[in-house]
Amino acid sequence: MENELPKYAVIVAGGSGLRMGADKPKQFLLLKEKPILWHTLQQFLKAFQDLKIILVLPAEFLGDGIAILPSLLDRERVQIIAGGATRFDSVKNGLSLIHKKGIVFVHDGVRCLVSVDLIQRCFFQALEKGSAVPAVAATDSIRMIEGKNSHVADRNQVRIIQTPQTFRTELLLPAFQRDFEPSFTDEATVLEAAGKHIFLIDGEYSNIKITRPIDLLIAEKILEERNS
Amino acid sequence: MENELPKYAVIVAGGSGLRMGADKPKQFLLLKEKPILWHTLQQFLKAFQDLKIILVLPAEFLGDGIAILPSLLDRERVQIIAGGATRFDSVKNGLSLIHKKGIVFVHDGVRCLVSVDLIQRCFFQALEKGSAVPAVAATDSIRMIEGKNSHVADRNQVRIIQTPQTFRTELLLPAFQRDFEPSFTDEATVLEAAGKHIFLIDGEYSNIKITRPIDLLIAEKILEERNS
Repeated sequence: MENELPKYAVIVAGGSGLRMGADKPKQFLLLKEKPILWHTLQQFLKAFQDLKIILVLPAEFLGDGIAILPSLLDRERVQIIAGGATRFDSVKNGLSLIHKKGIVFVHDGVRCLVSVDLIQRCFFQALEKGSAVPAVAATDSIRMIEGKNSHVADRNQVRIIQTPQTFRTELLLPAFQRDFEPSFTDEATVLEAAGKHIFLIDGEYSNIKITRPIDLLIAEKILEERNS
Repeated sequence: MENELPKYAVIVAGGSGLRMGADKPKQFLLLKEKPILWHTLQQFLKAFQDLKIILVLPAEFLGDGIAILPSLLDRERVQIIAGGATRFDSVKNGLSLIHKKGIVFVHDGVRCLVSVDLIQRCFFQALEKGSAVPAVAATDSIRMIEGKNSHVADRNQVRIIQTPQTFRTELLLPAFQRDFEPSFTDEATVLEAAGKHIFLIDGEYSNIKITRPIDLLIAEKILEERNS
């Protein structure tokens, strides 16, 4: 059966920025008494019993990553590797550990509210179409800046992109056999640079990226609501 | 002094949609024991002592609007008028009550977390430049859909637009002397159709529009944080 294909989740938490005003990078801040990253890892472990995680961390925080493992659903399915200078390099390091044909998820470590349902939907679409890039419609008006001017974008055409960006390994791995370019803002742009087509899939409004202190409060509220 | 110019806030809560799964339109749902709209009105009343509010409501919910007034900081500064079929028509109805030269804010009734600081900054920029349209940078990747394809937008050029969209009355009132067109998604687009230039201003990430049930939870958390 095709859904017995090997499954890999490259969880990228390569940032060592301290913008959240704390003494640790944001992926290690606590959310309901567990590091943000713990929640992320747990969702992927729950989504598929045979999924393997490749966790990419800044070299100086490998120890903090190892400390998370014991409280996970299944620590045996998690490998840790050091990241590179850019997100592209970090993902490339993660992908270097994949040697079987299968499906690979690339996910932001700080998108800890991703649902098991979204992970599973991405898997099945990537199986069928080769890729699944979660996207949600914009609820606000969007403008595009051009120098000192701006013009309104057609809201029906705007999509806000999330992760896990999910691909067949035979598409994504060759696309990463190259050097970084500044236009590579995510994995979809790397695949497109290799001449491949991207397929979007419905994302989730609650699948937010924890970037600002307010996001941590929001995440807490969403988790409380889910557990009630 | 120029800041003694008349100030009007047209607060648009013309929607009667029940998408939030409640028995009232979302602007009347409770947030910290007060209707969402109450919070919005209160922020504008606090921002300037001489600001007058024109509250635009669906005809069938005028009574619910009147019921909010007694608990406000200053009910004497709030007028209520029925809205029209579109946001454009609702705003036009509101603007019809303005007969003096001054500054007019047009604000979404469900953006109840707007800060006094943002309202005041919008006022002073509109005084100086004619307009102030709050905008924030996108934190996620953005794609533009074209048929079955999509392409990534330059994130540095993308701005997410908020309210209060703020204008000198002598610019906005004449721009509304026309019929609705589908391209009028906000007041900025109406002004542009009249050949005028729009000036953006830094918005606030917390200035969210309450659209989905999750937004109400987020708003609650933000208010708790502000009051602690």
